Amino acid sequence: MKSPAISDILAAAERIRPYVHRTPVVTCSGLDRLAGARLHFKCENLQMVGAFKARGATNAVLSLTDEEARRGVATHSSGNHAAALARAAKLRGVPAYIVMPASAPPVKRRAVEGYGGVVTDCEPTQAGRESALAEVVAATGAAFIHPYENPSVVAGQGTAALELLEEVPDLDLVIAPVGGGGLLSGTALVVAGVSTRTRVVGAEPAAADDARRSLELGRIVPAGNPQTVADGLRTTLGELPFAILRERGVSVLTATEEEIIVAMRLTWERMKLVVEPSGAVPLAVVLAHREVFAGLEVGVVISGGNVDLDRLPWSIR
Amino acid sequence: MKSPAISDILAAAERIRPYVHRTPVVTCSGLDRLAGARLHFKCENLQMVGAFKARGATNAVLSLTDEEARRGVATHSSGNHAAALARAAKLRGVPAYIVMPASAPPVKRRAVEGYGGVVTDCEPTQAGRESALAEVVAATGAAFIHPYENPSVVAGQGTAALELLEEVPDLDLVIAPVGGGGLLSGTALVVAGVSTRTRVVGAEPAAADDARRSLELGRIVPAGNPQTVADGLRTTLGELPFAILRERGVSVLTATEEEIIVAMRLTWERMKLVVEPSGAVPLAVVLAHREVFAGLEVGVVISGGNVDLDRLPWSIR
Repeated sequence: MKSPAISDILAAAERIRPYVHRTPVVTCSGLDRLAGARLHFKCENLQMVGAFKARGATNAVLSLTDEEARRGVATHSSGNHAAALARAAKLRGVPAYIVMPASAPPVKRRAVEGYGGVVTDCEPTQAGRESALAEVVAATGAAFIHPYENPSVVAGQGTAALELLEEVPDLDLVIAPVGGGGLLSGTALVVAGVSTRTRVVGAEPAAADDARRSLELGRIVPAGNPQTVADGLRTTLGELPFAILRERGVSVLTATEEEIIVAMRLTWERMKLVVEPSGAVPLAVVLAHREVFAGLEVGVVISGGNVDLDRLPWSIR
Repeated sequence: MKSPAISDILAAAERIRPYVHRTPVVTCSGLDRLAGARLHFKCENLQMVGAFKARGATNAVLSLTDEEARRGVATHSSGNHAAALARAAKLRGVPAYIVMPASAPPVKRRAVEGYGGVVTDCEPTQAGRESALAEVVAATGAAFIHPYENPSVVAGQGTAALELLEEVPDLDLVIAPVGGGGLLSGTALVVAGVSTRTRVVGAEPAAADDARRSLELGRIVPAGNPQTVADGLRTTLGELPFAILRERGVSVLTATEEEIIVAMRLTWERMKLVVEPSGAVPLAVVLAHREVFAGLEVGVVISGGNVDLDRLPWSIR
């Protein structure tokens, strides 16, 4: 699978512009003091569908030929990619078939259905997802849009960092969370393409540090079944993102569950922003590794804000 | 007490500009659909100290002569005005004396102390507050900055609506919450000064509707001891705000406790913004009185975002 070029990301930005938000970049002097650095938060929690996933899914669906798009699109996901794909398909006027574990929260199913997506239940395992998806694709002829093993998706996710660097060009470092790796690899490609001085760092829960280990060992280490509050980052790093991150020499730093929850709460209290656990992992890493970030201008990608308000991690603990 | 002129509000905007945020105005298509109107939210929850109160307090402290400011400033408040005044005093380099009920949440006391404010405990009654404040003022010679019976404070609060109308000039209506009335009266003065087509409506909990009743009866009706989740709006309407609102013909609409909590939760879920109960009352009123707002361009002032994350109203119920 071919890595997108910077021109693909610039084209993605043009393509999706009418359909996604240019999200704000915000600062918070209180958090700057805590971190000992100057933090510029790119607020993808304020993006359509509440997460950066709207970018990649929209770019992928709009990049299909009419023939490819005609019979709709499909994916397996219990999270933000599902809603993002359903919305993108609706924009294009084609059906979206979403394979979702029967155990997925009802609110996520309703989000997909709210955009007109057709939900198919599956067993809550990787094998269950894949076989259900194969059946749906065979029956409908829909185009499979993988959440990260897809160059158009990676290019779309990169547009968040592109906007961040347009707004704050002299960043020393950009930090983004890494699950499957679509966002982090898109970010790495953009930074390499438009800035010579900016480094990229991935942020991962210590309890789900497969991307860190994969990049250190030089081969993909399966995540297994990690237990972390950051539900968006439990996925194993994908092959396409792995290849891009490896080529760009991106490293990954981790934060503990406690550090993630503290960072999430800080974002709510100090910035008045609703951020999901996965979206707070970069700030958690910045605060846990102050020596790495001290004195720097740091871009921090807040990936999403979809969280169950009845089950906040500080209430459950 | 003299009502501020529009020139006072324009001067306030200049005076406080270096010290407060120009907060964003955001929209949300999902909430527009729910309301049947086009809503433009002025996000004072993203203001310094987490509330519009930073505007009025900063304007009042910076408007004092050196002689007036020399011995510091004082107020009684358990809420956002206390933190805002402590911060404004720190900016000016003078002491702030804050009289606070001993029952006030520790987090509010810490906020004041974090800005260098000196806290004096009092009984949690109006009489207790006033006598403690009189003692503090007598002992220190500090200038009393009332949270709303003060033309400089009212002028400062009006700068939020001024920015809103600069950004969205063709609003049909602006709705803001009303407790003591500083924000709503400042809003009414700005709208009268800069727009001929825009109406102003106050938003109040039905369980603390003293402003509605006061304006209907033509005299101030004490709030008593109202029980509402909107802790910032339990105050009785002040005399200066009352006179301004009466002269401008401003009316007040109410929402029930249930409607306020639903609106607060909608703001968190759909807009990913942390809003305190008082700040959600305008949206609650818009959704509870759809016929009034149908088809209109509506400015909605979100007054603040200071909320105890361990005691969210939907968890307590």
